[in-house]
Amino acid sequence: MSEYRKSPVMGQMMSQPLLISSIIRHADRYFGNNEVVSRRVEGDIHRYTYRDCHRRSRQLANALATLGVQMGDRVATLAWNGYRHLEAYYAVSGSGAVLHTLNPRLHPDQIAYIANHAEDQYLFFDMTFLPLVEAVAPHAKTIKGYVMLCDRDRMPAETKIPNLLCYEDLIAASSADYEWPIFDENSASSLCYTSGTTGNPKGALYSHRSTVLHSYASTMPDALNVSGRDAVLPVVPMFHVNAWGLPYSVPLTGAKLVFPGPALDGKSLYELFEQEGVTFSAGVPTVWLGLLTYVAQNNLKFSTFKRTVIGGSACPPAMMKTLRHQYGIEVVHAWGMTEMSPLGTTCTLQARHRALPEEAQQALLEKQGHVIYGVEMKIIDDSGAELPWDGKTYGNLLVRGPWVISSYYKGEGGDPLQDGWFPTGDVATIDPDGYMQITDRSKDVIKSGGEWIGTIDLENIAMGHPAVLQAACIGLAHPKWDERPLLVVVKRPGAEVSKEELVLFYEGRIAKWWTPDDVAFVDALPIGATGKILKNRLRESFKDYKFPGA
Amino acid sequence: MSEYRKSPVMGQMMSQPLLISSIIRHADRYFGNNEVVSRRVEGDIHRYTYRDCHRRSRQLANALATLGVQMGDRVATLAWNGYRHLEAYYAVSGSGAVLHTLNPRLHPDQIAYIANHAEDQYLFFDMTFLPLVEAVAPHAKTIKGYVMLCDRDRMPAETKIPNLLCYEDLIAASSADYEWPIFDENSASSLCYTSGTTGNPKGALYSHRSTVLHSYASTMPDALNVSGRDAVLPVVPMFHVNAWGLPYSVPLTGAKLVFPGPALDGKSLYELFEQEGVTFSAGVPTVWLGLLTYVAQNNLKFSTFKRTVIGGSACPPAMMKTLRHQYGIEVVHAWGMTEMSPLGTTCTLQARHRALPEEAQQALLEKQGHVIYGVEMKIIDDSGAELPWDGKTYGNLLVRGPWVISSYYKGEGGDPLQDGWFPTGDVATIDPDGYMQITDRSKDVIKSGGEWIGTIDLENIAMGHPAVLQAACIGLAHPKWDERPLLVVVKRPGAEVSKEELVLFYEGRIAKWWTPDDVAFVDALPIGATGKILKNRLRESFKDYKFPGA
Repeated sequence: MSEYRKSPVMGQMMSQPLLISSIIRHADRYFGNNEVVSRRVEGDIHRYTYRDCHRRSRQLANALATLGVQMGDRVATLAWNGYRHLEAYYAVSGSGAVLHTLNPRLHPDQIAYIANHAEDQYLFFDMTFLPLVEAVAPHAKTIKGYVMLCDRDRMPAETKIPNLLCYEDLIAASSADYEWPIFDENSASSLCYTSGTTGNPKGALYSHRSTVLHSYASTMPDALNVSGRDAVLPVVPMFHVNAWGLPYSVPLTGAKLVFPGPALDGKSLYELFEQEGVTFSAGVPTVWLGLLTYVAQNNLKFSTFKRTVIGGSACPPAMMKTLRHQYGIEVVHAWGMTEMSPLGTTCTLQARHRALPEEAQQALLEKQGHVIYGVEMKIIDDSGAELPWDGKTYGNLLVRGPWVISSYYKGEGGDPLQDGWFPTGDVATIDPDGYMQITDRSKDVIKSGGEWIGTIDLENIAMGHPAVLQAACIGLAHPKWDERPLLVVVKRPGAEVSKEELVLFYEGRIAKWWTPDDVAFVDALPIGATGKILKNRLRESFKDYKFPGA
Repeated sequence: MSEYRKSPVMGQMMSQPLLISSIIRHADRYFGNNEVVSRRVEGDIHRYTYRDCHRRSRQLANALATLGVQMGDRVATLAWNGYRHLEAYYAVSGSGAVLHTLNPRLHPDQIAYIANHAEDQYLFFDMTFLPLVEAVAPHAKTIKGYVMLCDRDRMPAETKIPNLLCYEDLIAASSADYEWPIFDENSASSLCYTSGTTGNPKGALYSHRSTVLHSYASTMPDALNVSGRDAVLPVVPMFHVNAWGLPYSVPLTGAKLVFPGPALDGKSLYELFEQEGVTFSAGVPTVWLGLLTYVAQNNLKFSTFKRTVIGGSACPPAMMKTLRHQYGIEVVHAWGMTEMSPLGTTCTLQARHRALPEEAQQALLEKQGHVIYGVEMKIIDDSGAELPWDGKTYGNLLVRGPWVISSYYKGEGGDPLQDGWFPTGDVATIDPDGYMQITDRSKDVIKSGGEWIGTIDLENIAMGHPAVLQAACIGLAHPKWDERPLLVVVKRPGAEVSKEELVLFYEGRIAKWWTPDDVAFVDALPIGATGKILKNRLRESFKDYKFPGA
């Protein structure tokens, strides 16, 4: 921060950089006996304490030094949520290297492109990803060695991967005698590439400062509200924007940390929730769909699960109501981006909202919410003018704050900022109380007769129909209106509904001219690596479509 | 933080200094309609919103510029908890000057000493302190003007105070058109002197960085747990370590803020709690004594009050039990110091403590608790060696962290640190789970036959006797044992108890050799400016005492 004007009178407080290593040291020293429980790719349940995690992280830091990893070097992971991945989080960043979480849902060519762009030096991977790593390795130009996260007896008898090392051998050979280095808090700590629907993937390069500030902010009661009373199960993957920061924010509170590994199906999750007394979880809507379906089919209840944060995309209102009213689970909408570490807003009610009728409360909770202190936001029109906060006017959403990127790694894509603000690519309204609601991605919004139609509202309404399992709305060319909405629907198994019924279902629920002109039924929607519907792919597959009568 | 080694790869996040002005801007922009309610020294209730507060803070910032206040200048306040004091908090620090909160409970000579040492340029004061300011002014060498926090019609017809200005006139004459300046986050923001039982008062000079980090940390669920669902009444004064940071942490969450002004008696507090729906409050034990006495005498209940943080000194276990079991109020012990901004530890239970029997939970809650992430602590013996965390071994408590001072203002008292740690002057134990318990101030601990006796335990036991209103234990010279404990007691009105009964009351509650050798009954205990019992004064008044038979 040395670029700013100094006061003639400077504070006389201790100078301590904000470093990620301080989190695991804190968890060890003050919550050392608290548990980290992992369902492993090996299939069993592993449990140890924050003290164990800190000890093994220090061993791994020594192992990294032995491997020749230097400050600033990128060390990649391809791994599920688990204790070894957590150790890599602390050992790599804590020692001054850069943790680069790769997304295993990407195509091997994309993974190789990203690993080469990042110039990764080592790749740590879960054994389920052995075939993927075998596909990536021949194209990876900078990786000096591959570390499989397993015991010696799980190592493959033969492999084409060059310099394949065993994680537990590395740990066993390394001393826990390691002092976390102290360095400038603006040093890079971790790297995560955006999925990049257009252009090349681009890397968000986080710093220790941004990560620690985000950790403080995200634990606050109106953000993720993580406390030592919780047992937290992050369903959101550690390869996706650092699992929304939970691998940092949970240890710093001393809460019990429960990792699901690769088993994200309803049954596996439900069993882990119940066995480990999980109170709080976080993930994208599609995961809760699987969990709720399993629970409903087997007529089960949750004994300890009390609160969930849903992000990635908006929670369909019907699902939110089921969670809230049928299971008594508090649902908090969160919104953010890879470029925002990721948390920007959460939707929690304030004291004066308690008096509102249930319907008004539900309407508020369906919004993306208010910014977390540290982040600022505004909506602007295409000319850059700021738009009013009336809850109706749509605009391009811009953000800024100490955990928002200023540029992409290596300057990819040029300067992304507009007057110091980051354009999110989302279109949103903000109401007079500061509650923001995403109405669309700017590239998905439907421009009909010079006006904008937000597709998220249209999808939420369709999802409220009992026969609809999934819905996506896209704008397609129309000779008169420029674009008009087409609703694309996946029906629930065994359910039947006609196009006409669905179009009629919008009556009274939305402005008439917003109603989709037509409905198309499909077996499945194209889903991207981060669980979102790929609308560009959908538009592509309907490119020859013509609206009836048009 | 430029003094630290930089990584060859620096993060690419927005560079934004952590500044206090961002808090009130956030409160305005995102929680602008939420209320700040103040009981005024004028006697009435004043209400406005965070938006109003931000507007008037900007007006005050312009007024300060007009008065010639420069970046780094110290601007003092002598004021109760109220909205005008809040405006000074933001206007003074936000504009780059240093807010110096003076403690009106000090003697005028001490106040003058401190104001001269700080070289205060202006003094803003509540009209109840007019006589105090008249006593201070002739001795204040640097104060250029005095601003009385009131309307024009309340200004005194005549006064000996030079250059006496009217606050509301200043505001009315100033535009709200003001952009908060951006500057280095390590710039000084505020100044608070310790009461200094020995030597001269010494100033803790906070920075914007330390204040903002403390604000984040203190809102966390296991710290003060402040959220937008709360209505918060800080009983702890804004002239005492910034009211434990609540004037910052409450606005940043958007919670309703309720200020009690000078009316801290049980009746006034109770009425404000009920009228304003207060959910959360914070203060020293003596305040709750008055409130609980009033509530019990009038057979009342609390409708909304759910949680209180108690610090300054330990909450007597009997009072904690009454609050918890009789009124259903969660009690959180907090511990800290002026030198720590002030929060160091809070005592909240973790997930695995839920299974403990009530008695074990109560025993844990009576401790000062675990550190808030950011602060570190250790206990050492007189040679500097670290002592074990077994819950029994006593040691000198040392702390460090980004909101702990590195030295006192102007270097007063020399370098206070030991190897980079701040010695708190407290003696404490730490248990294997990291829960710290203060057993004494190092200067109050009783050294009997080469062993230490902690006075706080002895006092808590005495306070558990139904006839005891207040108790203090001091070590007095003893010919055989060097020192032995004397228990000094204020009896409850109308209650009777003998010395012998009180000594017997210790039987089975504590090691036999810890039992006080004698009891003295007094009408009142000497209480200092921050509400703590002045044990040095007490020792002084018993200096000629001789133990029976000694």
